[in-house]
Amino acid sequence: MTLKPFMIRNENYVERTQNSFARQKFMVFLEAELAEVGPGSVEIGLDFQAGLSQQHGYFHGGVIGAIADNAGGYAAYTLLAASDSVLTIEYKLNIMAPALGKKLIARGRVLRPGRRVCVCQSDVYVEKDGKELLCATMLGTFMVMADQADDASGR
Amino acid sequence: MTLKPFMIRNENYVERTQNSFARQKFMVFLEAELAEVGPGSVEIGLDFQAGLSQQHGYFHGGVIGAIADNAGGYAAYTLLAASDSVLTIEYKLNIMAPALGKKLIARGRVLRPGRRVCVCQSDVYVEKDGKELLCATMLGTFMVMADQADDASGR
Amino acid sequence: MTLKPFMIRNENYVERTQNSFARQKFMVFLEAELAEVGPGSVEIGLDFQAGLSQQHGYFHGGVIGAIADNAGGYAAYTLLAASDSVLTIEYKLNIMAPALGKKLIARGRVLRPGRRVCVCQSDVYVEKDGKELLCATMLGTFMVMADQADDASGR
Amino acid sequence: MTLKPFMIRNENYVERTQNSFARQKFMVFLEAELAEVGPGSVEIGLDFQAGLSQQHGYFHGGVIGAIADNAGGYAAYTLLAASDSVLTIEYKLNIMAPALGKKLIARGRVLRPGRRVCVCQSDVYVEKDGKELLCATMLGTFMVMADQADDASGR
Repeated sequence: MTLKPFMIRNENYVERTQNSFARQKFMVFLEAELAEVGPGSVEIGLDFQAGLSQQHGYFHGGVIGAIADNAGGYAAYTLLAASDSVLTIEYKLNIMAPALGKKLIARGRVLRPGRRVCVCQSDVYVEKDGKELLCATMLGTFMVMADQADDASGR
Repeated sequence: MTLKPFMIRNENYVERTQNSFARQKFMVFLEAELAEVGPGSVEIGLDFQAGLSQQHGYFHGGVIGAIADNAGGYAAYTLLAASDSVLTIEYKLNIMAPALGKKLIARGRVLRPGRRVCVCQSDVYVEKDGKELLCATMLGTFMVMADQADDASGR
Repeated sequence: MTLKPFMIRNENYVERTQNSFARQKFMVFLEAELAEVGPGSVEIGLDFQAGLSQQHGYFHGGVIGAIADNAGGYAAYTLLAASDSVLTIEYKLNIMAPALGKKLIARGRVLRPGRRVCVCQSDVYVEKDGKELLCATMLGTFMVMADQADDASGR
Repeated sequence: MTLKPFMIRNENYVERTQNSFARQKFMVFLEAELAEVGPGSVEIGLDFQAGLSQQHGYFHGGVIGAIADNAGGYAAYTLLAASDSVLTIEYKLNIMAPALGKKLIARGRVLRPGRRVCVCQSDVYVEKDGKELLCATMLGTFMVMADQADDASGR
């Protein structure tokens, strides 16, 4: 089955996505970075620090969930019109391996864009000794908030 | 249908749960507190700070997910033997209302304890103007790690 | 926290829910019955027959999922205006015990009604020797299809 | 990231998977067929019949869920030792498009095999006018039941 390429509704989607991400103080708090923005996909990276760990020294599941959810939401965001924004309705996260390493990378992509609802998936990798290990996957549903831009660009 | 009360396998479960929680540096990072510990249930609280917000000033979904997941995991933890620990296999979070308020409270409870796997649910409330509003619910699956205590107590 | 009672938008919601259920041929195929309809809640029952089993003789997970999903969807349906219908966006099902018994009962309830999206939960019980055992729980998200009634009543 | 090929623990996995599937009476009831079996993947197909529909004439979500769950479970099953079987712990299904067509196809694959737990994903397609349309995706968790074969082959 061949997927149709996604329709871009806002030619400035890269900059708009970066600006919205920069306004999320929790991403700053975690020192997460929006590393890549494409049509229907984004990548978020995060360096290890002790404050992000659980009792075994791995990245905490809450950190994995936060960037997995966000990578899904911003993947959807790239396909929006300038007048719209996005909210997480729900997501499910499977943690598949201990997130032990120096960097966490979440790659989100749109599975199904919709006018009202987008379905997205994120894979989360941990980088260790120069290799990436798949440690989690997220499947989530995001609501398109039409005419409710989260910035001044769409008003 | 009447639920049977849960079996307690470790009479020091309150202290052991508090100690494990205290070793999760990410909870310290978020300034989350383990407010209550009962047999098969816990409550985690978290005061608002700007660093925990998303672009609209609400608590970020990643914060909601982190304490919802953890409230489920520690609810399961209270029912473990002293030799065991618990890992999140997966969870699903539905965000039902904007988390706008001064405090976030996650109440986790065990739905079904198992020797190998526990199913738990957490409800997350936001406190505003002295009232609690249900803003999210989590349904998750947690693996019992037999003979793999996360502290020295079980060795 | 006290929940507010749900707002009823269609005083004939019981009959309308029963009629919509009766049009689902798959429910007829399974010989499932809509046993109860309340404001924001329904109950679906299903007698055991060999054709509904998996390899151990339990009710098949697919049967559990089908009535759990449907109990959630119809719980949402009871709160709709006569002009609206409902679609499943997604659900998660945790199977917590083998569904061994003569009858399966799914009780769905609305957790959060919304104009666009409803969040519902269903608990599924298996009846054996006159007792009900909780065997599964479902947490799902349902889309309100405004002005898209699935019958003639709203047109 | 390159995935390692899966380890095969039972060289007769194709036949064993087919035999287990054939013992699921609910699959016979639905007239579902196990069309393909590979290492860590299976395909299940199902022709449309009126009894499988919901009120709009689409395949009912319960049918989609049943074969999506089963495709995930049998994908895991292909990687088991002859002494083991598999149970669904939980799954989440996103329905992404109306399942309107003459055939439903669920393709399941293992994302992460484990000694105790396997994580699998299934994509469900509906065939219409000779084309396949992605209508649902499932992410689920399956428990390996060690030394609990569901047939006589492992005893």
